[in-house]
Amino acid sequence: MSQEQPTLTGFDGADPGATIVLPGTPRYVAPAGVSNPKADIAELEELERHLFAHRYAQAGMSCYGATIDPEAATADRGEALAILQEEDQALLCSRETGELLDRLSAASALLNPIQAAQVRILQRDRAELVDVPPEVQSAFTRLVTEADDVWRRAKNAGDWASFEPYLDRIVTSMREMASYKNAAADPYDVWLNEFEHDTDCAFYDRFFAQVKEVAVPLLADVAASRRNPARSPFQGRFDASRQMELARDLIRLEGLDERKVLLLTTEHPFSDGLTSNYAIVACHVHENDVLSNVYTMLHEGGHALYEMGVDPALDRTSLKGGTSSGMHEAQSRFFENYVGRSLAFAPRLVEVMAKQFRGQLGRVTPGQLYAAANRVEAQPIRTEADELTYPLHVLVRYEIERLLMSGEANAADVPRLWTERYKAYLGIDVPNDARGALQDTHWSGGLIGYFPTYALGSAIGAQLKATMVREGMDFDGVCASGDLSPIHAWLRDRIWRHGRSRDTNELILDACGEPFSATYFTDYLTEKFSALYGL
Amino acid sequence: MSQEQPTLTGFDGADPGATIVLPGTPRYVAPAGVSNPKADIAELEELERHLFAHRYAQAGMSCYGATIDPEAATADRGEALAILQEEDQALLCSRETGELLDRLSAASALLNPIQAAQVRILQRDRAELVDVPPEVQSAFTRLVTEADDVWRRAKNAGDWASFEPYLDRIVTSMREMASYKNAAADPYDVWLNEFEHDTDCAFYDRFFAQVKEVAVPLLADVAASRRNPARSPFQGRFDASRQMELARDLIRLEGLDERKVLLLTTEHPFSDGLTSNYAIVACHVHENDVLSNVYTMLHEGGHALYEMGVDPALDRTSLKGGTSSGMHEAQSRFFENYVGRSLAFAPRLVEVMAKQFRGQLGRVTPGQLYAAANRVEAQPIRTEADELTYPLHVLVRYEIERLLMSGEANAADVPRLWTERYKAYLGIDVPNDARGALQDTHWSGGLIGYFPTYALGSAIGAQLKATMVREGMDFDGVCASGDLSPIHAWLRDRIWRHGRSRDTNELILDACGEPFSATYFTDYLTEKFSALYGL
Repeated sequence: MSQEQPTLTGFDGADPGATIVLPGTPRYVAPAGVSNPKADIAELEELERHLFAHRYAQAGMSCYGATIDPEAATADRGEALAILQEEDQALLCSRETGELLDRLSAASALLNPIQAAQVRILQRDRAELVDVPPEVQSAFTRLVTEADDVWRRAKNAGDWASFEPYLDRIVTSMREMASYKNAAADPYDVWLNEFEHDTDCAFYDRFFAQVKEVAVPLLADVAASRRNPARSPFQGRFDASRQMELARDLIRLEGLDERKVLLLTTEHPFSDGLTSNYAIVACHVHENDVLSNVYTMLHEGGHALYEMGVDPALDRTSLKGGTSSGMHEAQSRFFENYVGRSLAFAPRLVEVMAKQFRGQLGRVTPGQLYAAANRVEAQPIRTEADELTYPLHVLVRYEIERLLMSGEANAADVPRLWTERYKAYLGIDVPNDARGALQDTHWSGGLIGYFPTYALGSAIGAQLKATMVREGMDFDGVCASGDLSPIHAWLRDRIWRHGRSRDTNELILDACGEPFSATYFTDYLTEKFSALYGL
Repeated sequence: MSQEQPTLTGFDGADPGATIVLPGTPRYVAPAGVSNPKADIAELEELERHLFAHRYAQAGMSCYGATIDPEAATADRGEALAILQEEDQALLCSRETGELLDRLSAASALLNPIQAAQVRILQRDRAELVDVPPEVQSAFTRLVTEADDVWRRAKNAGDWASFEPYLDRIVTSMREMASYKNAAADPYDVWLNEFEHDTDCAFYDRFFAQVKEVAVPLLADVAASRRNPARSPFQGRFDASRQMELARDLIRLEGLDERKVLLLTTEHPFSDGLTSNYAIVACHVHENDVLSNVYTMLHEGGHALYEMGVDPALDRTSLKGGTSSGMHEAQSRFFENYVGRSLAFAPRLVEVMAKQFRGQLGRVTPGQLYAAANRVEAQPIRTEADELTYPLHVLVRYEIERLLMSGEANAADVPRLWTERYKAYLGIDVPNDARGALQDTHWSGGLIGYFPTYALGSAIGAQLKATMVREGMDFDGVCASGDLSPIHAWLRDRIWRHGRSRDTNELILDACGEPFSATYFTDYLTEKFSALYGL
């Protein structure tokens, strides 16, 4: 019907054929120059209510999709997610919402700090989406929902060929979306910037160069060392259901509020926070590798701590959740490594492990755990890597993503590129695609550009820890006590509570009194592994 | 801002202050008399897409809320559900949607049968909601989300007092909503009609009178009989995790497609179908009562069979799912009783039970199961009742609901009313509120008016079975074979595939060649229990 209507005066008639008008979208456009801040703030709150409900529904659907949904449900879930995505985009990207945010931005003196941050973040979210055609964006949602299922089956079957066309489609789609977002920029830079604002290839090239400059010679020295920390005390078969109990014990040990955490299992571990009252932590138990479970749980628990540490006042706003992938990984890698792989915390971990596996682990020592968890070993799995080889695993993915996004490689080349780089950087042969290019879930979920934030997050974490120590925190004493609340309090105050209201650079500057520097990370690696290997 | 705008010509300016415009809502109103059926059908499809995505999200959130969500998440989930509910209502109840449906209804000759049914059902859904103020409706969503959690804790603590104020609030809210829906009607009649169209108290009074006329003297005869079927072979402690395996075996035995079913646990069993590809079945295992698990699974599986038997073409439309509570209970009670409590099916059930509990049940006979599952016993739990006492459990709830909704009783009276009626109808003392008025989840979820459909569904099921037999189906032979597909095929063809496109009365008339009659049910009870007790 609507096609036949004339554009009405005062009404946003840019697309009179469009029938999707989203909840919260102001129906009328204020005449130029007219502003009523009180009404505009009410509109802002109304917008945020609807965005909250959608975000809550979508996060749940995605998490349950990767954990408990039956396989046959994928297509319907993808369609429902795509439609909700359309609604979000129409709501956020309408001209009316743009004008509302512009008016509020101009009246920022009348806003409280939370409102001002909401306007700023909503404007940025909108800018990143507004030029992407809705049908392109929703097709991408459908694609990655399907691809994630395909990837899971492909990984279990070790069958790269079945996943390959999906990766090509995802790359094509992400290149296309990047061109809408910023036609002038390199497509990979566009995505790097979405996962961590103010980063691009030039930044990561410098970052990885600095890390490599330290890690590569250090790795050679480690290889030449006669010391050889053993993993053997932790080898054997560890019952899966007891490992699930261990996972629950680790949630408690890490200081998460159990009443707010849902523990599930999945193919590739992840966590998400629906609100500060509800975190989903999905783990994967390998009966032949109990340490994998321990450090995965500490890692995912770190993500959950961040999500649940955001000021509850931000829960139902766009400021909810972690500010970026890099800062998120800084928290997860912090609890996995700076706490979890420390000698000071080892007695506490040994305790919880021995509680579930008295017979197998009742007599291992904290020193044995420290050695096993920090043994440097070139092996094919990123999530099981020691801290020294870890950045090289990430580097492999960064370089391959860059080739894919530039069009210099396509999905068919990936297994070969993977094999070549693992040989070059880690000196190992990739056993198969399941333990090679299919090991991670990220690409199937459309997260090309996410991987580098793992290495960046490790480095940010080192800087945060160095600052705590410099300020006088007895970091090792806190870890040794098993009560991590002083660390929680520090991170909550400086990082967590701010949610998305501050960007990574600003958070680091405020938390550490100086800009980001990777030197804390390289110094940490040098000191830790020199001591461990007697270099 | 919008308050200051004039109403624009041709635009629905009925409420210029409203800023919520929902997805799929046509933006323009066609001038009177102008109609473009092709564009209107496209609008209908667009409306249905958004309703589908919302329904999918809401069903999942509700199901997960009652099963796996952490307790702390309730308030956020309630708020998100309330906002999505607001969006649905705004979408369905907008004047534009009303006019769209009216135009399509007037042009019904141009619609295919599915579209015509969509328009009819959407008009009815809209009529039931359009006069309820959105803030009343969404407050109700918040209330029942919270109340469900309160009820779960109250039941576990046996603490009626903590639930009592919530029941009063729910009754008040449902009375208020009923007054908006139909101010002239009795509030309880309004809700009875929503759970089963074309029913009211007058109908159920006649129905229960007919059932009582047979069941009460039959029950007296049974009590006087010297026969006493034993439950003892199935008593003892049955391991919970093995019972979960048994639940999975029962899903297979019943003929559900496992790839489409998610099995979870909860306080009060339920099932829901997100689409024909995704059913959630939530059970509750009692280690001291394995038969409870068996018949609960057959019951909930019957609901799931119905949902998954709907024509997939209806999946993403408002015709998706079962047509009414009564017809849904007809399916669940069919598989629980007419199949599950038959002598013919007993060998198949004994097989799956003995598979999981070889030591305990390896030597029980089908005859022993038949006796145990059909032993008439006045006991306090509805879901564990035999078929003869079952309608009396429902009658207790029907009478109490009626008193609550008429204002003749309030929540504080319920335990007393419950105790009095259980004594009067079943001759037993209610041991406590947990096994009394707190046993069922329905009231906490705002389902006052649902209970009578359990008894009605039992009676519809008897009529469906009688028709199958009259048409020549070897019903006992099908049950004995363990391959229920001929029963599935019959029900799929006559009932399931039609989804909401046909009402119960029409389905029964077409399926059975005559209107609903409770005589099939009373005859069935008389015949079955006379034989069993040698009357």
